[in-house]
Parts: sequence; structure tokens; C-alpha cells
Amino acid sequence: MSARQYAALPDPFVMHRGGVLRGARIAYETWGALAPAKDNAILIFTGLSPPAHAAGSPADPSPGWWEAMIGPGLAIDTDRWFVIVVNSLGSCFGSTGPASIDPATGERYRLNFPELSIEDIARSGFEVLQSLGIRQADTILGPSLGGMVVLAFAAAHPGATRRLVSISGTAGATPFAIALRSLQREAILRDPGWQDGNYAPDAPPRTGLRLARKLGTITYRSADEWAQRFGRDRMAGARPPNSFSPEFEIESYLEAQAGKFVERFDANCYLYLSRAMDRFDLAPLTQGCVERALVIGVESDILFPIEGQRAIQATLERAGATTALIAMPSIEGHDAFLVDIPRFSAAIGDFLRTG
Amino acid sequence: MSARQYAALPDPFVMHRGGVLRGARIAYETWGALAPAKDNAILIFTGLSPPAHAAGSPADPSPGWWEAMIGPGLAIDTDRWFVIVVNSLGSCFGSTGPASIDPATGERYRLNFPELSIEDIARSGFEVLQSLGIRQADTILGPSLGGMVVLAFAAAHPGATRRLVSISGTAGATPFAIALRSLQREAILRDPGWQDGNYAPDAPPRTGLRLARKLGTITYRSADEWAQRFGRDRMAGARPPNSFSPEFEIESYLEAQAGKFVERFDANCYLYLSRAMDRFDLAPLTQGCVERALVIGVESDILFPIEGQRAIQATLERAGATTALIAMPSIEGHDAFLVDIPRFSAAIGDFLRTG
Repeated sequence: MSARQYAALPDPFVMHRGGVLRGARIAYETWGALAPAKDNAILIFTGLSPPAHAAGSPADPSPGWWEAMIGPGLAIDTDRWFVIVVNSLGSCFGSTGPASIDPATGERYRLNFPELSIEDIARSGFEVLQSLGIRQADTILGPSLGGMVVLAFAAAHPGATRRLVSISGTAGATPFAIALRSLQREAILRDPGWQDGNYAPDAPPRTGLRLARKLGTITYRSADEWAQRFGRDRMAGARPPNSFSPEFEIESYLEAQAGKFVERFDANCYLYLSRAMDRFDLAPLTQGCVERALVIGVESDILFPIEGQRAIQATLERAGATTALIAMPSIEGHDAFLVDIPRFSAAIGDFLRTG
Repeated sequence: MSARQYAALPDPFVMHRGGVLRGARIAYETWGALAPAKDNAILIFTGLSPPAHAAGSPADPSPGWWEAMIGPGLAIDTDRWFVIVVNSLGSCFGSTGPASIDPATGERYRLNFPELSIEDIARSGFEVLQSLGIRQADTILGPSLGGMVVLAFAAAHPGATRRLVSISGTAGATPFAIALRSLQREAILRDPGWQDGNYAPDAPPRTGLRLARKLGTITYRSADEWAQRFGRDRMAGARPPNSFSPEFEIESYLEAQAGKFVERFDANCYLYLSRAMDRFDLAPLTQGCVERALVIGVESDILFPIEGQRAIQATLERAGATTALIAMPSIEGHDAFLVDIPRFSAAIGDFLRTG
């Protein structure tokens, strides 16, 4: 069962840094009902790797990645709001990306996909609103990569949303975050299985994807959380001598996380999205581009640190947006928005209910 | 030119977790003169990757890895102290390790090397003292891996040193540090060039070593240092479109660091030393095992955090050692001992001059 819908992008779709896409589309899911005045839409952009399936619905009741946040009576209340979650342009869950067929050749784009920018992802979300006849969203919201996309959206489409929520995003990645993403990409690029991007769909560069995802997992959480959760606990079962096989619980956890990812995410899409995050520098904001904004950061986030959230707040305020900053004391690091549901529910719920 | 000397280890050398080495030796260098009473020795254990060449000397004037710290009139004053730096057992700069020839077979040990423990490295340093007729060192000192080794030394050889300096070490690695080292090892283990440890010396698993070293470099420094030093600066020169080749200065820096390491360090030795760091749990200390101790940590160190330094201090104090803790505000992270020479000179110089 699928709740996936599609919006066609303008054809050709001219990319921010050059090149065009023909016949491109965006996959999205929706929850709740669009009001007759079309003034109750919340548009959500995801992090790097999730699909549009953020929550269950009658058409697809399987739990989504933000199941505890989106639904009747929840923080993002589908009794009141018409919620749209888009799969990012460049991703591999229904939206056009490097793993899609290039209509000009009948083959997958792979590295012939034009350079992807955060601005392209923002604009493709804007086009989804257009396709639904929504002139102005009530709120655009995004965590991580999505927290960058909503800023690019505000810059490129002033007035296309009334409010904005940026969660653990940035207006320009730190060299520390760039270093980590560069290394994740290198693990894929140097995997012989990558084959310059020409791997078969059923024979992806698993080693590279595995290493990239493990490094991601390490940086998405925090040292303190793992100290509490895993400590120095050993895995059950004997370890063969000198095998260097996983021995600690933390190693088993990383293995489980990576195993799921490798079979799910396309390597070339990963490279494009990852590089887009490095290259993003927020363009100047037009005065009044949004009315109100909420910026959320997590104190234990090493990838998108709190100082960056303060910079976002200052930028939005200079553009005339009434902006609140919440620095979450969550222990879960960058991933807190997926885990510390009580704090994020309260913050986002309060913001959506007021003003 | 080489200043390298060798001490033979007891034959057989029984390893802490089982197995023996035959005809094993430790490479070391010395600076200054041993006093007739043999009471002025400072024994230094290194981090994971350096050789014993910590500073220049007449026999080898090339600069060492702690050139600014060891010498006449410097913090570790060779006019007063007889300074010994050992290459760790299990390493590849003259001491016996997995890259050495196993006398039983005439072939390199590779994975036939017995399991290496921090306790083995500590004991091999103790044996170097024995070989020089030094009953008691004035001070044993070590950063990083060396900061763990000095603790194991104090546990296993009470009274064999009067004082101890542990810099950015730990009495038991955090799951965060284990996760990072596990991933570094996996990058090597999954490199087809590793060949189950049977790579030719001139054809090492370069990709795995490169990825491992880059990840090390990322975690040895701090996000704040890199933000100041590199920001979002781009490398000079054009980047081919869609090549995913390095573009930011930080990527160029990582490349340079990794390039040096790959040609210098043996992959199997790396695996053994890295795993030994994960598995170390400090044994109980005997009352009075050392008289005085200095524990130094760095506030921006994400790999060996300050809380771990406090735990070391408490352990040493419970064993009756007069112990000071210095939490350095250095911005350079775990590597600060190599970079923030003014602060480390002052702290170590003061400690050695007094008491």
C-alpha cells in the first residue's frame, strides 16, 4: 500500500547551478484536509535520508519517521492542518534524482544528473504547493537538511509561507560538518563497487554506504547518550580471537543501523544530497519574506551546533521575521527531533497553535 | 641518521591476554644524561601513531613530534632529565609488532601476532627501564594512548615510577570513542587491499588507511578550531563538474594528513593498537603505587572527554597519589598537546620542577 502522490515539476526544470531536468516529479504524502481557503497547509522537508512517509495514513498505515509528531491531536495536528511531506528532489523515494531514468537516454541519470543545490529542493517543494493551488503555506518546516531547505525557500519565495520552522539546520555548514560528509562520500567513491557511479541497482557499493551510514550515525547522536545507553557493555556470544569482529554493544548498534540503510538508499543520490549540504550558503532574505519563525537547535548537536542556530535567528530577525530560538537540552544530539518527542512536540505544537 | 636504540624484552615475553613473543625488542630514543644515581629518568609513551623520535638529537637532528617540549631549557628539560621515549610494542617503528618477522616462521606476524593489550605496552616500557638499570623512573608521561599506558604501568608496576603524567588518556574508553575506532578499523578490514592482513608491504590497504586517518584527524581536532582556521574557504583551482573531488580547504587539509600517514603506518599494527585502546579497563591500583600525579585533559576533546580525566584523578587519589587535574581550555581538541605548546609547556614544566 502506498500513500504516495506525485507533482510534476515545470518542464524543463532549470537547476540552480545550471542544467535542466525534463519530466521531473516530486513524490509527497499528505495528512488532514486542505481548507476551502487553502490557508492551512504545512509543508515539511525531510532530512537527508527519509522518504515522504512521515506518518501512517489510511492509504499506508505503516509507521512513518515522525509518527509521534504528525496526526490527530499531535503536535502537528492533522485535525487542523493539511500536512504535506515531500521527498527531496535528488532523493530516491519517488522524486526525480540520480537513480531515476533520464528520459533523454532511457538510462538512469547517475552522474549525468545536474548538480543539485538546496535551492532546487526548496523550489521543488514550492512547485508542489503550486500544483495544489496553495498560494501561501501557513508554515514550512524541516529538520537537518530540511532545516536548510526551509531557509532557501524563504530566500527564493518570499511570501510563499507565512511561518517557518528550521530544526537543527544551518545557513552554511561548518568545516567540521563538511569534513565528516566529505569522508562519507569518499567511503562511497573509493568503494570499487561504486564503479564511477555505474553500479547495478542490485549491486550497490555496500561497503561505502555502510561506512558512510555508520559515520552518520556516530555524528547524529551524542557521546553522553551512548555512555548512558551502551557504556562499555559487551555483545553476547564469543568473539573469535584476533578477528577484529564487533565486540561491544555500540558496534552492534552501528551495524544494525548501517545494515538497514545499505539496502534502502541509493549511493549516487547520497553523494548529490551530501554535497548539496556542503555547498549551501543562504542567499540574502527579502524584508518580510516570512512573518514568524521558530529556530530549534540541540545543545548536544556536534554537526549543526547551537551557534549556527543563533546565526539563523539573527538572519531571520534582520529580515523582519518575529523569531524565537529554542536551544534544546536534549542528550540525543542532532537526531533529537526523532527521539526527544516530548520536547519537540511541546515546542512545535506551541508555535503552530499561537500567532 | 638514526638515534634509535633497542632493548631486548625478556624471552619469552608473555602477553597480558595470552600468547608469547620470542626475541621481541623495543625501539627507543634518549635525550640528556642519566645521573649516576639513575634517579632522573622520564619515560614517555607515545600516542597511537608516532615513533620514538620525539625530538632532534646529535644522532638524528630531524625534528621530532614533540620538538618544542623536549630539549635543553624546555618544559621537559634535558639539562636536568634523562628522557626516554619508547615506540610502543605492537607499533611499526622498530619495536616488535604485527609487521615484524616472527622468528618461528621467518614471515611477518600479521594476524598471528598475539592479542595486544595496553598492559603489554606498559610492561615493555618497564623492561626498557630495567635494561638501563633504572629501578625507579622519576616520572612516566604519556598523551592519548600513552595517557592510558601510564595508568596501566602504575597498576602493574607499583613503585617503578615516583610520578606520573597522564595527558588526554582514559581508564576506559567511551562508547563514542569505541564507535569511531571501530569504524576506522572497518575501513581497513573492508578494503580489498587488506587481504585478510596478508597485503604486501609495498601494497598496503591505502584506501582503508586513508579513511581511517581522515576520521582520526577529524576527531583529534575540534569544530571550533576548524571554523576559525578554515571556515568555508574554497581550495584554489577549478573543480571538475560532478567529480565530487575535494573543493573546500578542510578537505585539502584532510587529504594532506591522510597522504602522509598511508605511506608511514602499517595497517595491521593500526588494527592491533586501535583494538587495544577499546579493550582497556584499568586494573585496581595498589596504595602508594605513585607519589604524585598530574592529569591533563582538554575541554574541547570529544574523544577523551574531561569527565574521563576527573575519573582518572579520583582513581589516583584513592590510591594515595597527590594528584592535580588541569582542564585545558585549548581549542585544538585531543591533539592540543601537539599544538598548544605554551599551555602544555607551562603545566608539564611546573609539575616536573616542583615536588
